[in-house]
Amino acid sequence: MTRYQTLAALLARRIEQGLYRSGERLPSVRILSAEHGVSISTVQQAYHLLEEKQMITPQPRSGYFVSLHKATPPLPAMTRPAQRPVEITQWDAVLDLLNSRQEEDILQMGSGMPDVTQPTLKPLWKIMARLAQKQDPRLLNYDTLQGLPALREQVARLAIDSGCQLSADDIVITTGCHEALSVSVRAVCQPGDIIAVESPAFHGTLQTLRGFGIRVIEIPTDSATGISLEALELAFEQWPVKAIIVVPNINNPLGFIMPEHRKKALLSLAQRYDAAIIEDDVYGELTWEYPRPRSLKSWDLDGRVLLCSSISKTLAPGLRVGWVAPGRYRDRVIHMKYIATGSTATQTQMAVAEFIRQGHYLPHLRRMRQIYQRNYETLNCWVRHYFPCGICVSRPAGGFLMWIELPEPFDAVRLNRTLSESRLQVAVGSLFSASGKYRNCLRLNFALPMDHRAEQALAVLGAAVEHAMAACAVDALPALSTE
Amino acid sequence: MTRYQTLAALLARRIEQGLYRSGERLPSVRILSAEHGVSISTVQQAYHLLEEKQMITPQPRSGYFVSLHKATPPLPAMTRPAQRPVEITQWDAVLDLLNSRQEEDILQMGSGMPDVTQPTLKPLWKIMARLAQKQDPRLLNYDTLQGLPALREQVARLAIDSGCQLSADDIVITTGCHEALSVSVRAVCQPGDIIAVESPAFHGTLQTLRGFGIRVIEIPTDSATGISLEALELAFEQWPVKAIIVVPNINNPLGFIMPEHRKKALLSLAQRYDAAIIEDDVYGELTWEYPRPRSLKSWDLDGRVLLCSSISKTLAPGLRVGWVAPGRYRDRVIHMKYIATGSTATQTQMAVAEFIRQGHYLPHLRRMRQIYQRNYETLNCWVRHYFPCGICVSRPAGGFLMWIELPEPFDAVRLNRTLSESRLQVAVGSLFSASGKYRNCLRLNFALPMDHRAEQALAVLGAAVEHAMAACAVDALPALSTE
Ligand SMILES: Cc1ncc(COP(=O)(O)O)c(C=O)c1O
Ligand SMILES: Cc1ncc(COP(=O)(O)O)c(C=O)c1O
Repeated sequence: MTRYQTLAALLARRIEQGLYRSGERLPSVRILSAEHGVSISTVQQAYHLLEEKQMITPQPRSGYFVSLHKATPPLPAMTRPAQRPVEITQWDAVLDLLNSRQEEDILQMGSGMPDVTQPTLKPLWKIMARLAQKQDPRLLNYDTLQGLPALREQVARLAIDSGCQLSADDIVITTGCHEALSVSVRAVCQPGDIIAVESPAFHGTLQTLRGFGIRVIEIPTDSATGISLEALELAFEQWPVKAIIVVPNINNPLGFIMPEHRKKALLSLAQRYDAAIIEDDVYGELTWEYPRPRSLKSWDLDGRVLLCSSISKTLAPGLRVGWVAPGRYRDRVIHMKYIATGSTATQTQMAVAEFIRQGHYLPHLRRMRQIYQRNYETLNCWVRHYFPCGICVSRPAGGFLMWIELPEPFDAVRLNRTLSESRLQVAVGSLFSASGKYRNCLRLNFALPMDHRAEQALAVLGAAVEHAMAACAVDALPALSTE
Repeated sequence: MTRYQTLAALLARRIEQGLYRSGERLPSVRILSAEHGVSISTVQQAYHLLEEKQMITPQPRSGYFVSLHKATPPLPAMTRPAQRPVEITQWDAVLDLLNSRQEEDILQMGSGMPDVTQPTLKPLWKIMARLAQKQDPRLLNYDTLQGLPALREQVARLAIDSGCQLSADDIVITTGCHEALSVSVRAVCQPGDIIAVESPAFHGTLQTLRGFGIRVIEIPTDSATGISLEALELAFEQWPVKAIIVVPNINNPLGFIMPEHRKKALLSLAQRYDAAIIEDDVYGELTWEYPRPRSLKSWDLDGRVLLCSSISKTLAPGLRVGWVAPGRYRDRVIHMKYIATGSTATQTQMAVAEFIRQGHYLPHLRRMRQIYQRNYETLNCWVRHYFPCGICVSRPAGGFLMWIELPEPFDAVRLNRTLSESRLQVAVGSLFSASGKYRNCLRLNFALPMDHRAEQALAVLGAAVEHAMAACAVDALPALSTE
């Protein structure tokens, strides 16, 4: 890199980190030249480069300004849920979200569905067709409870990439990650027990805990580094927390990867308070960096981590193939699995095992990572362009989900209602809280093709948000005056 | 029918009902002729016919005797479980049974697996191949929570045969009948609640109840007419029973069909004590009579019956496609379904829906009923031939399961251990009790081909039973003398 490129990169990073905010004036050429010990023309070249990238805008006679809407919005701040055990609500809202799957003409920006249209999935279809043509009756009969050995071997092999040493016998196959989570919860807890969760957290996990009569403590979570270990420790001190559920690699909904030292610290905290960790790795293979980050399980020496995952986000959720590496809870997990559904479907397990064994999985992953990253960049532009100022936006390190925080008292539930007229739907933030927090947040899916229809949807969404925020501001006035 | 045929049929029925027992002398030709007002030669012709069928044996100068081992063994008597809430155990034994699925060289006479090798399943394979060839990405993505409308429509249509008026919207698709049962239990009960079950009862149901912390009351059950309504009423009077789980049509393991008037009486009892009924109909389509018997659900006016079923026994358990018609508990069932596994696999649902829609289901059922009935007759002969006297044997009205009761203190658990050397396995009776009763019973599968290997197995089994019973008799002596 030349000098001016280095300087431009530095300035771009500052803008992205929100050091210079949207519309703000940048330092003069003279000051920058002095600060960085470079020539005036180097600074000018750097500014030209950023101008080309539409990150900054020159204003005649005043210098350069950070382009409006072009600056990266700041990250959501550390969340601050109530740190005491709460009952979980929100089922009706979750149901609304899930029911909209039925309506084909709705653009489902709120869903957690991956893109299943890529040609790298063709071998999977072929394998399924061939399995059906072979007519092996064993595929129609009950599989063993633990799952197909051929699949368990492939899962164990893939786990090496996340730093895990597992054998096929350490794996239990489940009906999706959902079942992996629910049998894990039931293996480590009794009704009435307390589990600590990130906040926000995946609504499926919250509903599962609710269904089993578990109380949850929502722990403050940072959108870049994950669950607050300090707050978690406090919770451990105050309450008999039995287990922690985390999504440390590509969190849903915040998109972060927990830094390694924090992962290790989380594990030792769990050891200290003798709690189980349920690690949900369902998005872990979809990180944009390669090789993928390590799982908590990879440092787990005493078998207290139950690693749950599936092919739902990487390959095809409709096959309902997931798994858990349950550590020391293996026997109980198998029992709970029997209780919930009996054995897992045989043929779909075989198809997935074959797909991985034949070497189609990693090329598919590579492609999906690229597509999602490109989609993310596009969505990011559109959000900056179409949304009003004053919002915070997550910076996912992979996957296909974006979390947007709007100023309170913005109400995403109300927003969704107006959006349904435009056949558009987002996931409202309150789904991701046991106690109905985050109504001012929403989650967007960028596994959808980022085409003209999506851009139009973003424009509608941005306008609706702007409108709603303006209405909030007006709403807030009488409330103030009557108090 | 001619006169002598009518008379022979009458005598055969008496023998089958145990009125004339094995080895017993039959009335003289003269007496029968007087009793029935027919000629002596008619009686002689009737006896000859029965002799041809090997049901009776002539003894020179003494007349006719019921053939040894050819008489139908009596039915097991009404069971007498302890009628108070108990904790469920037996998981280890269930696990042993399930694990033997892995060992291909074991003849699994204890399993609940159907025959999935018949040519009437070919269209299913074809449909699956065609679905894979079409490469419709929707099949790879999440289905709706309630399940594929196309499948729900077919299930509702089939339910007409059991007397039910259901619409597609009354059905929730599940991952096998197992999940249907477990979400139903969770929809109507809380941990600590009491549920009444038949005794013996399907081990999967018992383990599910155990997993959810439900206490069960085992109700005496008759091997011809089903759960004792008198005992059930007593249980209702003494305990706060929240629900009843029954398998009224082709009970597992006893094989009975509850008579209609008892079904109706069961329903009104549930109404009177405001309890839910979880009706497990998984074998209901496999009755040898046609049309199939009505389900409890067909009389259910106030939505208290949750009808659970699947294609596992009729088509293919490996596909894991089941359903529940949850009546008034629909919303809670959908919630519990979300919690357990999320939505059901899309493609397998589609394949089953197509198979039924294209009209392959009923011809397949017809064939399976015939095969199982023929297998039953063969197994029945072998049991009479190879087993010692003094046993009781169920008379299934369909399905592919036979229940054998041996005199106490015979121990089927110990028997199974010796059988494993012969690569043979049966289901021990104690699996079917919450409290470890029925160790003197075993359940045999006759969906297996009743071929030479099976006959050999029956011979080994019969000899082992005879040996064990003799040992029991010896064991019992010192116990008597020291008391
Ligand atoms: C964090 C997380 N865990 C688990 C799941 C459920 O995965 P599956 O579809 O494999 O059951 C999801 C799906 O939305 C998810 O986002
Ligand atoms: C009475 C009964 N109910 C339910 C089941 C479970 O059926 P599925 O395989 O559809 O989960 C069985 C299977 O053995 C059964 O015998």
